[in-house]
Amino acid sequence: MAGKDSDKGKKKEGKKEVVHGKKKEVKKETGLGLSYKKDENFGEWYSEVVVSGEMIEYYDISGCYILRPWAMSIWEILQTFFDAEIKKMKIKNSYFPLFVSPAVLQKEKDHVEGFAPEVAWVTKSGESDLEVPIAIRPTSETVMYPYFSKWIRGHRDLPLRLNQWCNVVRWEFSNPTPFIRSREFLWQEGHTAFATKEEADEEVLDILELYRRIYEEFLAVPVSKGKKSELEKFAGGLYTTTVEAFIPNTGRGIQGATSHCLGQNFAKMFEINFENEKGEKAMVWQNSWAYTTRTIGVMIMTHGDDKGLVLPPKVATTQVVVIPVPYKDANTQGIYDACAATVKSLNESGIRAEADFRDNYSPGWKYSHWEMKGVPLRIEIGPKDLANNQVRAVRRDNGAKTDIPVANLVEQVKDVLDSIQQNLFETAKQKREACVQVVKTWDEFTEALNQKKLILAPWCDEEDVEKDVKTRTKGEMGAAKTLCSPFDQPELPEGTLCFASGKPAKKWTYWGRSY
Amino acid sequence: MAGKDSDKGKKKEGKKEVVHGKKKEVKKETGLGLSYKKDENFGEWYSEVVVSGEMIEYYDISGCYILRPWAMSIWEILQTFFDAEIKKMKIKNSYFPLFVSPAVLQKEKDHVEGFAPEVAWVTKSGESDLEVPIAIRPTSETVMYPYFSKWIRGHRDLPLRLNQWCNVVRWEFSNPTPFIRSREFLWQEGHTAFATKEEADEEVLDILELYRRIYEEFLAVPVSKGKKSELEKFAGGLYTTTVEAFIPNTGRGIQGATSHCLGQNFAKMFEINFENEKGEKAMVWQNSWAYTTRTIGVMIMTHGDDKGLVLPPKVATTQVVVIPVPYKDANTQGIYDACAATVKSLNESGIRAEADFRDNYSPGWKYSHWEMKGVPLRIEIGPKDLANNQVRAVRRDNGAKTDIPVANLVEQVKDVLDSIQQNLFETAKQKREACVQVVKTWDEFTEALNQKKLILAPWCDEEDVEKDVKTRTKGEMGAAKTLCSPFDQPELPEGTLCFASGKPAKKWTYWGRSY
Repeated sequence: MAGKDSDKGKKKEGKKEVVHGKKKEVKKETGLGLSYKKDENFGEWYSEVVVSGEMIEYYDISGCYILRPWAMSIWEILQTFFDAEIKKMKIKNSYFPLFVSPAVLQKEKDHVEGFAPEVAWVTKSGESDLEVPIAIRPTSETVMYPYFSKWIRGHRDLPLRLNQWCNVVRWEFSNPTPFIRSREFLWQEGHTAFATKEEADEEVLDILELYRRIYEEFLAVPVSKGKKSELEKFAGGLYTTTVEAFIPNTGRGIQGATSHCLGQNFAKMFEINFENEKGEKAMVWQNSWAYTTRTIGVMIMTHGDDKGLVLPPKVATTQVVVIPVPYKDANTQGIYDACAATVKSLNESGIRAEADFRDNYSPGWKYSHWEMKGVPLRIEIGPKDLANNQVRAVRRDNGAKTDIPVANLVEQVKDVLDSIQQNLFETAKQKREACVQVVKTWDEFTEALNQKKLILAPWCDEEDVEKDVKTRTKGEMGAAKTLCSPFDQPELPEGTLCFASGKPAKKWTYWGRSY
Repeated sequence: MAGKDSDKGKKKEGKKEVVHGKKKEVKKETGLGLSYKKDENFGEWYSEVVVSGEMIEYYDISGCYILRPWAMSIWEILQTFFDAEIKKMKIKNSYFPLFVSPAVLQKEKDHVEGFAPEVAWVTKSGESDLEVPIAIRPTSETVMYPYFSKWIRGHRDLPLRLNQWCNVVRWEFSNPTPFIRSREFLWQEGHTAFATKEEADEEVLDILELYRRIYEEFLAVPVSKGKKSELEKFAGGLYTTTVEAFIPNTGRGIQGATSHCLGQNFAKMFEINFENEKGEKAMVWQNSWAYTTRTIGVMIMTHGDDKGLVLPPKVATTQVVVIPVPYKDANTQGIYDACAATVKSLNESGIRAEADFRDNYSPGWKYSHWEMKGVPLRIEIGPKDLANNQVRAVRRDNGAKTDIPVANLVEQVKDVLDSIQQNLFETAKQKREACVQVVKTWDEFTEALNQKKLILAPWCDEEDVEKDVKTRTKGEMGAAKTLCSPFDQPELPEGTLCFASGKPAKKWTYWGRSY
């Protein structure tokens, strides 16, 4: 853990180290500083930063992770936002069982094919074998829809709009990664049924907009809204919309969250019929949609740096950390009181602030510690600040330092936090845009792929062609595939050809490797 | 479903039935009215009321139940209260995996013996057998404590106070009952570690007080705080405190929620040590505590009646339902507007109210429907009410009707809701107290047991004696056992003998059959 970063830290904080003495020891024990750099070894950097930032603890079962309070509080902030929004839409929370019987799970053929290889099966309780093995939900379409069939009789029972917050299990074997790909994860899953396709279509987009807001407004992560290809859509559904993020460091796209229109496919299999206003029998139109704890991983990958996590103020449990910087002979009590008063003022105006009064760590150690944890703004109060009736504010995103008069504290801190939120988003957006490469030919495509670009290419929209691209790009790094066809389509001049097949192109589509 | 209750309903609403015509048909289809009476066949009544009240749907896997929005919203209200309270206590939320490896699960001998027969095992994923079977958490002591050991080094890392909201699985075979005993259930589980026993003891009681408030202040269910016997305490713990409820109809006690001091037993097994302030190695003191969705079941059993659920206002999603009662030739639009205005006023003052404007149901049908769902207060607005600038309010708990002038609407509705909350609690408390029977001899004990009493008896506090009582009372109805020794102990005159062993009694203890 004692890499270059720690050395750098040590130099910068040399003076304080002398004063406080203990620092070196502590540093060694707590492993402050990261051993890997984001640009040099992204994978190791990520594994290290989620642990050192106290988001994750690795667990003794592979692919399962402990979400520590620092991560959980972010999940709760997103949950509070989303839950209130869907309640405004009259969507109600419910809770369906974790377990699915095999007969029900297998009812929708395409769906079960999509999930079967990843399903975990309970076969024993205590010492006894179960009569029939029971599946753990990988998603709850098949859990819920038999009851939709029971509850929905007439058009007045529609729309039926349910959501649940729960855990699901997908026993994947490929490369587990904290938040991004885990065998158990937390999510919300919405399941709704409507009388008409129009209503279902509208909800798909309303929900997708909430997902965009989670990424862009809360996590400061830019995403593209778009539609998944037939090959990439939800197993058993009609069409899938997505908010698609991109990680410049690895050149990989990542599905941020998806909102599916299931059409009438599940309705047919599960016999979800109703009597419409004319007294005729009709089938419902269904949607399902979900976002997961993956959101947090995408945020970490996007903003984190070589000093650790960088949290957007809107989702940071602690937006401001206040650190006393006492010197020998200084008015220590005065400094501590000023720190406490600062926290109090900030808390009272709704800013999530706390002071770090621990007396066994030096200010320098605390700076590194809270930088590792990604707290957006650090406030330092030393003898000079006390004398001048000011505090020193240091931004986590760009390291900029300003002195804030105590009289303007709340107002200026609010402004700085807004500015950090904005800056994180703008920076991420610029980096993402710098990666977008428009290609028109196969050669351009492979070159861009090698350069880890987010490729935008005209495509004939044929499944065989996508399969063919996958085959041709197979390799150590994984094959390229479609990420999404963005709703925001550039002009497609007549006569434009598909970069892969040479057939007439039907749309612009994002391509790349993905998580 | 068409029992005596429906007939009664029909008679009462005869007039409206003629006006609206459709009612009979609708009633038949929706099965309004319960087939069983609470006093005559409690078990069937309960199974029916949880379904007809739209709390629960039975699921195709035995012992698993669907929590419908009407139940889930109650859970959310309790969760909001409890979560805010524990956050004030600096307890932080986290999320640990659903899965436990067998080696870890088996580390604490008494603990694993307590849970082993109920553990569900995952042995397969997709078509492949797992190398080692993996358990689904029945509770998370063994999941969490290896990491407590890792995170806790010195006294400054203490206290460590974590909580999680999650599902757990206990594959029980005895008599599954919705909310009360299910194979999967939702709960919160708190797990904390302290430097001293005093701090742990204090927290045990702080949490128990929150559990009491959940039952008494929110669910209007009286409980006794007390301590479990050695036989009944948490497997592997030091001592268990409980809030104990009682169901007069079945004469059974029911453990409401438990707050355990684990002592240093798990700390020893999982090596959770720390360096104390003197630089010596010490072991932590631990607690764990939980309440579950069982709370909702106890509330239903306590307040429900032959018309359906009766919800205390504090936990009712809909506290007031407003029903238009238009007559032929009446000013229908005026009535509907008055209903909408009533809902608006109530909502604006923070009362959860909604109107039932459905035009395919009669007012009488709606009365029965919302009574079945247990809404605390019904407001009816008909032509006469409109003319008099008043509304008619009908209480769910006692059927009392009052006319409320529109000018006093909010104030009076608030008062009525408070009064309902209070009345439900007082009524339940009286019923409970009427069941308490103080006994001093074995004969009195068996007689009281046959009369379904909540028995308070002097006891020698010996494990063998409790086992002996269990053996001697075994039978179709289940054996009697200790429920708890109440903190609030009546005087125990010197020389008082144990009702069962004749040895000197050490304390008063509640005994009875239990869920």
